[in-house]
Amino acid sequence: MPIPNISVPTLLLDKQRCLRNIERMANKAKQSKSMLRPHFKTPQSNGVGTWFRDFGVDKIAVSSLRMANYYAQGGWKDITVAFPFNILEINSVNKLAQQIQLNLLVESEATVTFLKSNLKTPVGIFLKIDVGYHRTGIPVENIPQITALLEQIKEHPLLHFKGFLAHAGHTYKKQGWAEIEPIYQQHRQALHQLKQLFLSDFPDLILSYGDTPSCSLLDNFSDFDEIRAGNFVFYDLSQYHIGACQLDDIAVAMACPVVALHPERSEIVVYGGGVHFSKDRATHPNGFEYYGRVVIWDKHTWQIPETESYVKSLSQEHGVIKASPELMASTEVGSILLILPIHSCMMVDLMPHYLTFDGEEIPIWDKR
Amino acid sequence: MPIPNISVPTLLLDKQRCLRNIERMANKAKQSKSMLRPHFKTPQSNGVGTWFRDFGVDKIAVSSLRMANYYAQGGWKDITVAFPFNILEINSVNKLAQQIQLNLLVESEATVTFLKSNLKTPVGIFLKIDVGYHRTGIPVENIPQITALLEQIKEHPLLHFKGFLAHAGHTYKKQGWAEIEPIYQQHRQALHQLKQLFLSDFPDLILSYGDTPSCSLLDNFSDFDEIRAGNFVFYDLSQYHIGACQLDDIAVAMACPVVALHPERSEIVVYGGGVHFSKDRATHPNGFEYYGRVVIWDKHTWQIPETESYVKSLSQEHGVIKASPELMASTEVGSILLILPIHSCMMVDLMPHYLTFDGEEIPIWDKR
Repeated sequence: MPIPNISVPTLLLDKQRCLRNIERMANKAKQSKSMLRPHFKTPQSNGVGTWFRDFGVDKIAVSSLRMANYYAQGGWKDITVAFPFNILEINSVNKLAQQIQLNLLVESEATVTFLKSNLKTPVGIFLKIDVGYHRTGIPVENIPQITALLEQIKEHPLLHFKGFLAHAGHTYKKQGWAEIEPIYQQHRQALHQLKQLFLSDFPDLILSYGDTPSCSLLDNFSDFDEIRAGNFVFYDLSQYHIGACQLDDIAVAMACPVVALHPERSEIVVYGGGVHFSKDRATHPNGFEYYGRVVIWDKHTWQIPETESYVKSLSQEHGVIKASPELMASTEVGSILLILPIHSCMMVDLMPHYLTFDGEEIPIWDKR
Repeated sequence: MPIPNISVPTLLLDKQRCLRNIERMANKAKQSKSMLRPHFKTPQSNGVGTWFRDFGVDKIAVSSLRMANYYAQGGWKDITVAFPFNILEINSVNKLAQQIQLNLLVESEATVTFLKSNLKTPVGIFLKIDVGYHRTGIPVENIPQITALLEQIKEHPLLHFKGFLAHAGHTYKKQGWAEIEPIYQQHRQALHQLKQLFLSDFPDLILSYGDTPSCSLLDNFSDFDEIRAGNFVFYDLSQYHIGACQLDDIAVAMACPVVALHPERSEIVVYGGGVHFSKDRATHPNGFEYYGRVVIWDKHTWQIPETESYVKSLSQEHGVIKASPELMASTEVGSILLILPIHSCMMVDLMPHYLTFDGEEIPIWDKR
């Protein structure tokens, strides 16, 4: 074993692959004169977060106010909580906004009314725009509602309107640029029209857009002032199936001890289950659902084997691997197998730290 | 709000429902003269664990050696790790087995050979038997392999053979007693034949069996010496769909702040996503997949509303609820909604503590 002392499921981070992913996205943003505000819900780590600074990143997005607090402690001074503002956390907002430039997302009169009565410190405000994902936000075509909200925001001294924020989550159900480009073009046009409508009232307003599939497949972001992709830092098998990355770009893998072998059905049982990987699954091109894919440890990195072995099922602590003949023959009880995840964000959320091939342990946010 | 200070997703535990679930299972075990060794991977809490002691429980099962260590700190003196022994954790075994009666699960010659060379303290040994789930274990009909393993175990002074352990995980894909009984009868017969074969060599050997569906639907466990159900302590919507419990038996619910309303499509967005519920899903009787069901807060408990509202999708932090007209009309931004989980074990694993209706915070195992 090249890395000693692994006895339980351990999250490996290939720093070289990760830096390559960050650099690629940062360079595209720079060339497009668009700002990269990476979504840090993926790494959940100030340790990994610092790697972005070398590429000029100094503003981030997060998915909760508690996560914003964590990153603020790591020195980040401009944070957007890219989640509809939860009015029950107003006290946290009033504290945190004294320390950093905090930007909140709003989409309803009720929330803005609440903020106007309870906010004690200035915050930036983004309007959440629904461009077709229909999870949440104001429909981009609902100009009366957007106008009414902006009127409400405009007159208050602590609410500083920053711009329109949209997330094209429906790209996650598409594959490749041919399917994603029409969505992208439609959003680009709708959001630009929206911007033009309000630019005279708010000359500094920006368009904030982004999801890893679009941002990975696009060559140029200049249509948007700011992009907020997050998952690209590690990628995963979901992104691979969308066509947003190569298998070789995936930068995290779970190291799992082998506890049982069943050569008669080409299966290997590992210590590594739903509490380590999450239960996120993907549909394999061959039609079945699966939960991860085996890669082969090779000194200070891993390689993609020619014949595929994959995780066919996950229980709470067990993973069952359908193994290639080569893997079956080379594995024994006590071996360590490396497994690429279906959804890196959810896997990272379950683990206490990353282990790099230099043997460095990088803590992951402790939410407790 | 009857319980103050909830501002983020919070796991509510209805202690009365939970005690009722424990009592029912403990009584059935007592009447059957079978021992209840509950699987504590579900509560993951020494606080909840102590509630079982009042019903005469003093032996437990867990799903990892690390979890065994946690419960040993809580005073449990007889713990079975109901997971194939991971030889890379031998040091933990040698330490823990000095403090408690530790029982391990084995299924291969390689593992037994390793134990014989590396074990320093006596442990109990269960043979993992595969009765048809085909996740792992020795097939119940493979008498030569079972005999060979027992020969290997028999001659070693630190390996104390306790019996055969089986888990009928395939009952989770069945519905109701009509579908589960044939599986149960088949296992009962096969395991009893196996026991008879080896009883002369090992007069104290026991049969350990159990899964929440079988144990909930059975009236009498006397066919088995020990039952190891776990999920019944809380139940969940998966068990409800199997027919193992009533909706009203489910003893845990997530309290989630409402952050957005979309009455035009009868949807409510809550702060509460995959990092709180896990991504486990169930198929609703009406054919669609869903992620949880809304119940109505009622003083010191909750009630099941007549018209159903359910979680239609989960992102990392968002939950989207398809709301009944009644729920839609009574909900506003800043309301708290209570949601029953699809899979309580996986949800509990993600949370730091339980909150009871008495306002008591009960810590959940901190795995970090």
